[in-house]
Amino acid sequence: MKNLLVAQSGGPTAAINATLAGVVASAKLSEKVDHIYGAVNGIEGVLGETFIDLDDKLGSAEQLHLLCQTPAAALGSCRLKIRQEEQLEQIVSILRKHEISYFIYIGGNDSMDTVDKLASYCRVHAIHDLSVMGAPKTIDNDLCGTDHCPGFGSAAKYIATTISEIERDCHVYAKKAVTIVEIMGRNAGWLTAASSLSRLNGGKGPDLIYLCESPFYPERFIQDVKQKLEEEDAVLVAVSEGVKTPDGKYVSELVQSAAVDNFGHAYIAGAARVLEDMVREQIGCKVRSIELNLMQRCASHLQSATDEEESRMLGMKAATAAISGETGKMAAVIRISDDPYRVKYDLIDISQAANAEKNVPVSWITPDGHDVTEAMTAYLKPLIQGESRVTYRNGIPETIQLY
Amino acid sequence: MKNLLVAQSGGPTAAINATLAGVVASAKLSEKVDHIYGAVNGIEGVLGETFIDLDDKLGSAEQLHLLCQTPAAALGSCRLKIRQEEQLEQIVSILRKHEISYFIYIGGNDSMDTVDKLASYCRVHAIHDLSVMGAPKTIDNDLCGTDHCPGFGSAAKYIATTISEIERDCHVYAKKAVTIVEIMGRNAGWLTAASSLSRLNGGKGPDLIYLCESPFYPERFIQDVKQKLEEEDAVLVAVSEGVKTPDGKYVSELVQSAAVDNFGHAYIAGAARVLEDMVREQIGCKVRSIELNLMQRCASHLQSATDEEESRMLGMKAATAAISGETGKMAAVIRISDDPYRVKYDLIDISQAANAEKNVPVSWITPDGHDVTEAMTAYLKPLIQGESRVTYRNGIPETIQLY
Repeated sequence: MKNLLVAQSGGPTAAINATLAGVVASAKLSEKVDHIYGAVNGIEGVLGETFIDLDDKLGSAEQLHLLCQTPAAALGSCRLKIRQEEQLEQIVSILRKHEISYFIYIGGNDSMDTVDKLASYCRVHAIHDLSVMGAPKTIDNDLCGTDHCPGFGSAAKYIATTISEIERDCHVYAKKAVTIVEIMGRNAGWLTAASSLSRLNGGKGPDLIYLCESPFYPERFIQDVKQKLEEEDAVLVAVSEGVKTPDGKYVSELVQSAAVDNFGHAYIAGAARVLEDMVREQIGCKVRSIELNLMQRCASHLQSATDEEESRMLGMKAATAAISGETGKMAAVIRISDDPYRVKYDLIDISQAANAEKNVPVSWITPDGHDVTEAMTAYLKPLIQGESRVTYRNGIPETIQLY
Repeated sequence: MKNLLVAQSGGPTAAINATLAGVVASAKLSEKVDHIYGAVNGIEGVLGETFIDLDDKLGSAEQLHLLCQTPAAALGSCRLKIRQEEQLEQIVSILRKHEISYFIYIGGNDSMDTVDKLASYCRVHAIHDLSVMGAPKTIDNDLCGTDHCPGFGSAAKYIATTISEIERDCHVYAKKAVTIVEIMGRNAGWLTAASSLSRLNGGKGPDLIYLCESPFYPERFIQDVKQKLEEEDAVLVAVSEGVKTPDGKYVSELVQSAAVDNFGHAYIAGAARVLEDMVREQIGCKVRSIELNLMQRCASHLQSATDEEESRMLGMKAATAAISGETGKMAAVIRISDDPYRVKYDLIDISQAANAEKNVPVSWITPDGHDVTEAMTAYLKPLIQGESRVTYRNGIPETIQLY
């Protein structure tokens, strides 16, 4: 008996289930796979042997379609980082017990680290009948070795669309006002850069865009906003949650030291909230801050068809490779050209992806530090193209429940 | 020459432009209308004579289609409340100068107050050749005299969809965690009630729903959350921004008195943020607050087809009535039945709508105070049905710019 086990890990995305669908599709097509299992809650579910049978739960084409439009990890997730040799020993023993020959782990940096450790363990202990393969996933787009990450395109499409809608909303009144939108990304500004795509149909988009890769100067920010306010009524700012002052301090920490609530707690505010107070204090006009929060990573109703398709292909690539005996690798997208947009799928050594972070190149940020260049737009634009055909029932998108 | 002037006012919605499209369509069909003008920024634009010619700008079917999917008020908006007789005199004089025989004002309570005052002024001064008509609009759904308000259905659909997505996102980890979502509504809880529609396809939806029509007891809230945490890992709470303690104090004000930031300012938090701190302090588990903020009112990409269609019909009703000589009225939706859902369109006296607020009936809130009844679901469900066909270009929805 040769079974395939798949699990999901890390933060949810709108496309991580498309990758799961791809894994299942490839496994179904192969004669070398007897049963397809899913571990609930990632590697925690492997250690706890919480397996579910996907042969039936994802047996029909309709179920796979619904899976692709279901947000967040349908198999659940975890944040467990494997640190001990005994855990690896235990995992291998459990996989053997369930006659698993192929293990596909869909996730981000930490998950790829798990794949790396597990594959190394197998190599060192001469275990040749277990293939361990990674499939990438992260809205942050910070995985190395792949042109971009599944889940990022859909988050970028959500951000571009939402910023274009907010821009219209902000411009209805003939009054001076500043709106600051905080976008996910503690160390990588890719998602914040995607706010610039709101300009693709002629909209103005954000007047100012600050990525966390550029040092953030509060005084310069106030100057930038003042200047924009002279040019127009409504000023729209997009900012990474992880912007830092030149001395390496998160902007979100600037207010925390002193602000204390009724219970005597430090008041932890987001970057946009801190900047909102700064504008109110130093400029005095109407100002509002908005966090795109979880919505930017789980808005499956606004999936990018490109992202969905590529996410599925990467799941297929990872599963096919595992079934053909590859191990210790991650499926990756290699870009061939921007326009026409062409990619190919490849396998990279897992150590290339594990524990490394890909940041926005500084050359893709404009010299004034508050916008992105055309090279950035050329890179981002293809990733949000196409709208997934979402099935609605009773006025809301239909989803599937696996456990 | 008999011209028609239309203007938009109050907070933006995803459907207010569908009403504008309806007004334009009816005016186009009539031989009694020579030109169609739009005033930019509502009644401010009337006073400032900032008129634009809509004959050309909305001359084609495609332009009208794009208008319907453009978020926020395409003609701009204002918050000006008419308080002086001289302003009314000035408005009438400007309308005469531009040979306006029909004035349609699309807006909420304050805008209907303007229609009321202007129509009364005309009556008192025996001005018989000017028809003044209101078309309703408000995501809050708090206008009297109409079964529901254009814009509300789309906001409700956004909320139902988004809450169902957030629910999936919250449930991926096998860890105790509380997520509190704040929904617009300072005095009316209709939008928060719409979070219950996230259950329509079998999802759990929010575990707790607090509307501003029920007194909010902080201790009881903590007890409710604790109890839900015993039953499951992830607890999801929906709360109106305007929830108040039994002594009439906004929950959002509970923290403001003491929290002071680096600049010595009172820290103004939203209700969900205050509750987040309360859970952290008194329960100690992982907790997160989310504001749906402007997105819930401007997400045109997720328009309810029912809302779009009805909004358009109300614009047509208001314009047709004005052209046929009616004045001082508001177009309204009258519900005939829930299932099958049937409505008719009627005119109500403007004084019925102006300056009054429609709240959620207490009987539609469950006795425990933290959910809504089936009667509420039966009322809400038809309003989010159907998905508007949104045209995308370059990966984001296409819109139209009128000025």
